Amino acid sequence: MLKYQKIAKNIEQYIKENHLKQGDKLPSLEEFVTYFGASKSTIRRSLGLLENKGTVYGQHGSGIFVHTPKRKDYIDLSFNRGFSHEFSDYELTNKVLMIETKKATSDVAQNLNITPSELIHYVKRLIFIDGRPLGIEESHYVQAVVPHLDEEVVSASIFGYLQKKLKLKFGFSDAYLIIGKLNKEEAKLLSLRAGDPRPCLINTFYLTDRTPFNYSKTVFHYEQSKFFIPVVKNL
Amino acid sequence: MLKYQKIAKNIEQYIKENHLKQGDKLPSLEEFVTYFGASKSTIRRSLGLLENKGTVYGQHGSGIFVHTPKRKDYIDLSFNRGFSHEFSDYELTNKVLMIETKKATSDVAQNLNITPSELIHYVKRLIFIDGRPLGIEESHYVQAVVPHLDEEVVSASIFGYLQKKLKLKFGFSDAYLIIGKLNKEEAKLLSLRAGDPRPCLINTFYLTDRTPFNYSKTVFHYEQSKFFIPVVKNL
Repeated sequence: MLKYQKIAKNIEQYIKENHLKQGDKLPSLEEFVTYFGASKSTIRRSLGLLENKGTVYGQHGSGIFVHTPKRKDYIDLSFNRGFSHEFSDYELTNKVLMIETKKATSDVAQNLNITPSELIHYVKRLIFIDGRPLGIEESHYVQAVVPHLDEEVVSASIFGYLQKKLKLKFGFSDAYLIIGKLNKEEAKLLSLRAGDPRPCLINTFYLTDRTPFNYSKTVFHYEQSKFFIPVVKNL
Repeated sequence: MLKYQKIAKNIEQYIKENHLKQGDKLPSLEEFVTYFGASKSTIRRSLGLLENKGTVYGQHGSGIFVHTPKRKDYIDLSFNRGFSHEFSDYELTNKVLMIETKKATSDVAQNLNITPSELIHYVKRLIFIDGRPLGIEESHYVQAVVPHLDEEVVSASIFGYLQKKLKLKFGFSDAYLIIGKLNKEEAKLLSLRAGDPRPCLINTFYLTDRTPFNYSKTVFHYEQSKFFIPVVKNL
């Protein structure tokens, strides 16, 4: 983790420990500079990160304010860091339905910017939240980036493994959400009925060097998933 | 519009006119400084805006790159500027179902940070895209901020009126998306069936001084609405 990222985390902790609410004013840029012993530009980067994330809102000239609109148990679509991170207050488990290494289909290849002859790891998992089905995840990892994935890794936090063991640096991701209807097989896995609402979240994850390394589709249990998108400014 | 916002718009135009694609490199910060005759910090702000918006991606040290993942006809959840802006390629029309000025309910008051005795304008519209029903919008405007709304304004672009006539400065918005099932009345309005998927987008819009001025719920036609979230960086 880089210095500005650590400071961003510390500012988040400061907000939490001081029970700051929506609209409360934060210390000034200068006070943070003194407090963290970091440069103005580092603090600005930390605050920029928190602004992107929707934690703070910088009012030009009048200070930096707390913006904490996220309701508990909403999935933050603007900050996708894998299930384990998003639902840290809950017990998340999963059942691996399939894991295989194969050639990419043309749809997957296109989204991962590889040729269809290149290998990917395909992982299909049923994710549970406090024992209830949360979603069916089908994920494709570029083998050239992630050499090996096995049942042990896949049944725990894949993203944790990629970051901690493989030292991959996540850059950003795009997300699409399409609403349809569940088919029979999906309904059975989610304990719902065929024809029930089917929110499907499609993600492409990129490394910091802009290499896409993961393309995934997750069909969520519509009653277990509420989505949140914080704060973006208007152009 | 501020200078950095104008420049951001010009950079977007530059990308469009030069048919730049995902991953293409943009001119350097220094080149933009010369080209626009603006300071480095202004250009940085413009690029920051575009980065938040998902149009560009700045790779530390190696340059600024085009990131254009948005597929046509997706609703960009991170940049809510009203329907007219989001669907500028389509013909948008609406039918005003109700317009009245009344006391806020407690739910609405809480979301708008006002007391339940304060007045709001309640507007219910059915929005059409190229003649097909797109969504049922129920919107609440704080009367203290928007003194007057009438049928003429409401049947055109409300946001256009607020920005151009009332000179309101939009700051940012939060968005929540909840998936449920349509009731009979909603289904009839959208030409769907009761029990069909019901994506409901809940927005609170703030002015630049952090005053919430609009709280709205829009029930979308699930087949006409696909959502896009250009996702931000990972903490």
